Amino acid sequence: MIIVMKPNAKKESIQNIIEIIEGKGLTAHISNGKEVTIIGVVGDKSKLQDQNLEIADDVDKIVPVTESYKLANKKFHPEPSVIKVGNTSIGGDEFIIMSGPCAVESREQLLETARAIKKAGAQILRGGAYKPRTSPYAFQGLEEEGLKFMKEAREETGLAVVCEVTSLAAIEAAVKYVDMLQIGARNMQNFYLLKEAGKTGLPVLLKRGLSATIDEWLNASEYIIAEGNPNVVLCERGIRTFETATRNTLDISAVPVIKEKSHLPIIVDPSHATGVRKYVKPLAKCAVAVGADGLMIEAHPNPAIALSDGPQSLTFPQLNELCSELRPLAELMGKKF
Amino acid sequence: MIIVMKPNAKKESIQNIIEIIEGKGLTAHISNGKEVTIIGVVGDKSKLQDQNLEIADDVDKIVPVTESYKLANKKFHPEPSVIKVGNTSIGGDEFIIMSGPCAVESREQLLETARAIKKAGAQILRGGAYKPRTSPYAFQGLEEEGLKFMKEAREETGLAVVCEVTSLAAIEAAVKYVDMLQIGARNMQNFYLLKEAGKTGLPVLLKRGLSATIDEWLNASEYIIAEGNPNVVLCERGIRTFETATRNTLDISAVPVIKEKSHLPIIVDPSHATGVRKYVKPLAKCAVAVGADGLMIEAHPNPAIALSDGPQSLTFPQLNELCSELRPLAELMGKKF
Amino acid sequence: MIIVMKPNAKKESIQNIIEIIEGKGLTAHISNGKEVTIIGVVGDKSKLQDQNLEIADDVDKIVPVTESYKLANKKFHPEPSVIKVGNTSIGGDEFIIMSGPCAVESREQLLETARAIKKAGAQILRGGAYKPRTSPYAFQGLEEEGLKFMKEAREETGLAVVCEVTSLAAIEAAVKYVDMLQIGARNMQNFYLLKEAGKTGLPVLLKRGLSATIDEWLNASEYIIAEGNPNVVLCERGIRTFETATRNTLDISAVPVIKEKSHLPIIVDPSHATGVRKYVKPLAKCAVAVGADGLMIEAHPNPAIALSDGPQSLTFPQLNELCSELRPLAELMGKKF
Amino acid sequence: MIIVMKPNAKKESIQNIIEIIEGKGLTAHISNGKEVTIIGVVGDKSKLQDQNLEIADDVDKIVPVTESYKLANKKFHPEPSVIKVGNTSIGGDEFIIMSGPCAVESREQLLETARAIKKAGAQILRGGAYKPRTSPYAFQGLEEEGLKFMKEAREETGLAVVCEVTSLAAIEAAVKYVDMLQIGARNMQNFYLLKEAGKTGLPVLLKRGLSATIDEWLNASEYIIAEGNPNVVLCERGIRTFETATRNTLDISAVPVIKEKSHLPIIVDPSHATGVRKYVKPLAKCAVAVGADGLMIEAHPNPAIALSDGPQSLTFPQLNELCSELRPLAELMGKKF
Repeated sequence: MIIVMKPNAKKESIQNIIEIIEGKGLTAHISNGKEVTIIGVVGDKSKLQDQNLEIADDVDKIVPVTESYKLANKKFHPEPSVIKVGNTSIGGDEFIIMSGPCAVESREQLLETARAIKKAGAQILRGGAYKPRTSPYAFQGLEEEGLKFMKEAREETGLAVVCEVTSLAAIEAAVKYVDMLQIGARNMQNFYLLKEAGKTGLPVLLKRGLSATIDEWLNASEYIIAEGNPNVVLCERGIRTFETATRNTLDISAVPVIKEKSHLPIIVDPSHATGVRKYVKPLAKCAVAVGADGLMIEAHPNPAIALSDGPQSLTFPQLNELCSELRPLAELMGKKF
Repeated sequence: MIIVMKPNAKKESIQNIIEIIEGKGLTAHISNGKEVTIIGVVGDKSKLQDQNLEIADDVDKIVPVTESYKLANKKFHPEPSVIKVGNTSIGGDEFIIMSGPCAVESREQLLETARAIKKAGAQILRGGAYKPRTSPYAFQGLEEEGLKFMKEAREETGLAVVCEVTSLAAIEAAVKYVDMLQIGARNMQNFYLLKEAGKTGLPVLLKRGLSATIDEWLNASEYIIAEGNPNVVLCERGIRTFETATRNTLDISAVPVIKEKSHLPIIVDPSHATGVRKYVKPLAKCAVAVGADGLMIEAHPNPAIALSDGPQSLTFPQLNELCSELRPLAELMGKKF
Repeated sequence: MIIVMKPNAKKESIQNIIEIIEGKGLTAHISNGKEVTIIGVVGDKSKLQDQNLEIADDVDKIVPVTESYKLANKKFHPEPSVIKVGNTSIGGDEFIIMSGPCAVESREQLLETARAIKKAGAQILRGGAYKPRTSPYAFQGLEEEGLKFMKEAREETGLAVVCEVTSLAAIEAAVKYVDMLQIGARNMQNFYLLKEAGKTGLPVLLKRGLSATIDEWLNASEYIIAEGNPNVVLCERGIRTFETATRNTLDISAVPVIKEKSHLPIIVDPSHATGVRKYVKPLAKCAVAVGADGLMIEAHPNPAIALSDGPQSLTFPQLNELCSELRPLAELMGKKF
Repeated sequence: MIIVMKPNAKKESIQNIIEIIEGKGLTAHISNGKEVTIIGVVGDKSKLQDQNLEIADDVDKIVPVTESYKLANKKFHPEPSVIKVGNTSIGGDEFIIMSGPCAVESREQLLETARAIKKAGAQILRGGAYKPRTSPYAFQGLEEEGLKFMKEAREETGLAVVCEVTSLAAIEAAVKYVDMLQIGARNMQNFYLLKEAGKTGLPVLLKRGLSATIDEWLNASEYIIAEGNPNVVLCERGIRTFETATRNTLDISAVPVIKEKSHLPIIVDPSHATGVRKYVKPLAKCAVAVGADGLMIEAHPNPAIALSDGPQSLTFPQLNELCSELRPLAELMGKKF
């Protein structure tokens, strides 16, 4: 932590800062520059947490030098994490496809989809039983009934299953049926939900918030890990920008940035990132080539009548075709699929 | 709802769309332009909710012509709403100041603040008992104990009190102590929480999400109103943009836009919008002049040691000074204060 | 300038940085923290301009501590600048209204507008003779003929006149006819144009780029001032964000931020910021209350048939009404108008 | 073009719109919906260019149904364009690498680079002789002398050469020495420069503006093509968003979106998009996999002392390694390289 003083800061202002720092048992390191004085803090900066130095006299700005997340930080955990989900693992040698409908609509729809995605090569079935929708008048999900269908699909196919949770009640229901919990983009900073998901010990798929920086995203993962649950997988799904040609802007650079800053695995969701089916294939390929650990791809028996996100869902033949094109690419990147 | 076909769309593709529309008991209105054919849908478009026409053959795009929110929409409710909160009202003739600390830290801190803001002219006391913080290692709030202090402050001063809620448990506790619930920016699309807040019947202060469009914000308010609770007050608190000179970018245009699109009152929070104390005064003034119904201003007995958001909090003398400068401005705008 | 090393940086890496710094005749100030080593550079950091220290071994990041603009910086020029334009001045006691059509369309249109805005109280006539338009098929301006009409309007009314310039040829023409040059948002980082405008010595109205940070904007003004021309007036006109309810998002906080960082005057353009006529009045008021030095307001004899930006232009009666509502507000803010 | 009326629009308001449309020789197509009336315009909508219908009484909004760019539009030119540049072509079967230093610094630096990039497999040499820099105190380029070195490098190696132009003077110089002109991101809406570049007939590399939508970018290309010069190549180089982990956010979706909307080739510049050398390789790979026609990669004999953009430049061994990893990927995508 560095405190940059204003040009011509008064001696007393500098002395005041030094006293606050030393009063907390830390060391102040003074550097008198040509224009400004800089004060470095040596020691555990969390001791200064209740001191708002930026409003002290003659302070120009405070510059943090270390990240506020520790458990998710690669600096203190250099080996990449491999997260076990059902019979498969994310972050290891295998390239993972999660697929399934946006919303679980019926037993038949889900079982049919589970069989189709397994055939295409996917390892994990996704399906929403609790749907966060922009409008209260849109379909809101089958809730626990939907979870039961997911469990049945898992038992029949052996696929691992993941479902989004949106409340403590949903978490309490989901732990009985699924292998992995998903925290959606709109709840990425619902810290209460993050803690509750952490407490379950189940692996958590943490989607990036629409306007979350990568640092905020890793801080959100820290909430889960701090509950003693290191099983977090990140999912880049597009951020909000001024561009409207796609529903969101896929921030593909997030993949190498996360690989640089964190040991957690990261997958990419091109379906939600674009909202447009015809862009799913090229973006899925680019996610493999950039080094992602997997993909989340929406698929539906009949996208034209899907109750949620039909326009971005693939048909089963389209999913099959996509997977066969991804296979040689994944191999070229050194991944099994 | 308008369906724009691609240039040279096949006759069968157009016929297919017409059949889907008519199959739902609606009327299709065809307009053959020079370059493209446009199909207007006459009737209740919600009947087409389970039809994803954008992926039908030869469809270029779908253009909605009406908003998806109805209860919050000024078109169907032209009179401005006035929301009663404790002994005061928001959206009427009076200009409202909500003030108080970011976080309730102790009984003394809160009572001292309540007396000071009342003296300055504020009508509503704010204070956070459940704090959503970016890092899990930051202060998380006093929870129910904090709510008790709020109630005590209300009883002593007669101020109305508002507190942020972040979970169903927090709502269940808060209804026993406060006059108004606040849904914070990070939970604006926590639809589960919106519904639960709606069910309480208490007035709800709904902050705009960091990257929420005005349409999404009004749709979020619709979730609350649809539970039979029309007592929603909106709060603009800055949106996320590329600019970093302020913590967020105060979207001051949101005030006249909301006044145009909705009947709900709207207040402005310059403290969170900028994160910088010295910018609070000019932005508070501009909020009065633009026609806002009130302000939320953070104040603290000693901002230098506030446990949360100290750098943007006013001291009590600063709050006093601000209020006396706002008074003639509010009067010029036709508001009592 | 501070160099933050990675945790566990090798001794040789630290030594290497020190040698580069000392090799340029500067002093390296080492601070060994608990987790990381920080190296402060004491002396003229521009000597390190051709050294890309961020890619040296074990460097985590470089943190600048001083701004790259000097001439526009309030730190080195604390008194606010007052810029003379024709018979009036911007940045002093007077609140300035620049008004006129987006595009000069004809002699009659311009003269009629000049008379009307003068009557309403405006001091400066604006009008575009060279129009940057998104589509090449839209009206591109009358060029030098338009400038002649501006000069005629100036002579008849005594108003100062300002015109946007988009090329060296336009500058060479404009200097013969107008009192102030405008650099538009799309050319804010057309550094060639900035230098050429600087060389003329005429006052320059520098609009903020659609996605320019405040720092980049002040650096752009530095290009003009560095040519020996200190007569720069800034104009906030909205930035690009995800919100589409207004054409751009007026960053009203830019006014107090500029007042904090620079001595240059700043005006606000609510017409371009919103693109919607009905929002011009509330945003004009808010610009006065936030402390701006003036406003740019588009007005047209008949907005319904304006060749450019009609939807955001005021009629003359609307301009009159606006000015009479702004007057008491400006007085309350301590400005003459 | 569709005009959406407000609910309860008066008959006279609707009649007024119809008369304006018919007065221009166009046909108005009325559709009376349940809530609102919609008026479609049949015929050449450019005839309504001087009518600002959005401010007519009772008009809610205007919805365009066709794009304003025609020459760049795939709808009217379905075959992909292949643009010849020197001895090579962009947009055909070959995957193109443009490489070289950000700024031409000396004859030796440029010739050494030209030889190295040729050996690595690049087909086009880039180098800046006119540098747009945020600060006026940064290196501004060698100007015409730099162009001479580019020509010499072309003659020695046979590589095609491309150089950014920032003014008419720069264009007039560049046409004597280079095979392709580059319009940089900051000048993407410098419409004057676009027209002048168009007039030369040379191929133009048009970088996307930092905050330009894809529609604005294609409209900018239309300015060049409308001068009779169809030889435009687009370059995605990152857009400005709230994320700061990378200098800009690479909008990789722009590649499939451009392939859907336009016939122009598109390349990707991961160096400028991220500003960080270690992210260049993964993003280069992802650009190949997403279907781009080529890459622009900055390379320098000694990035540590590059006068511009050193931190994002590759060394020659790094460029070699990158190219050998790209080769099998390009082949998998059906491109020769």
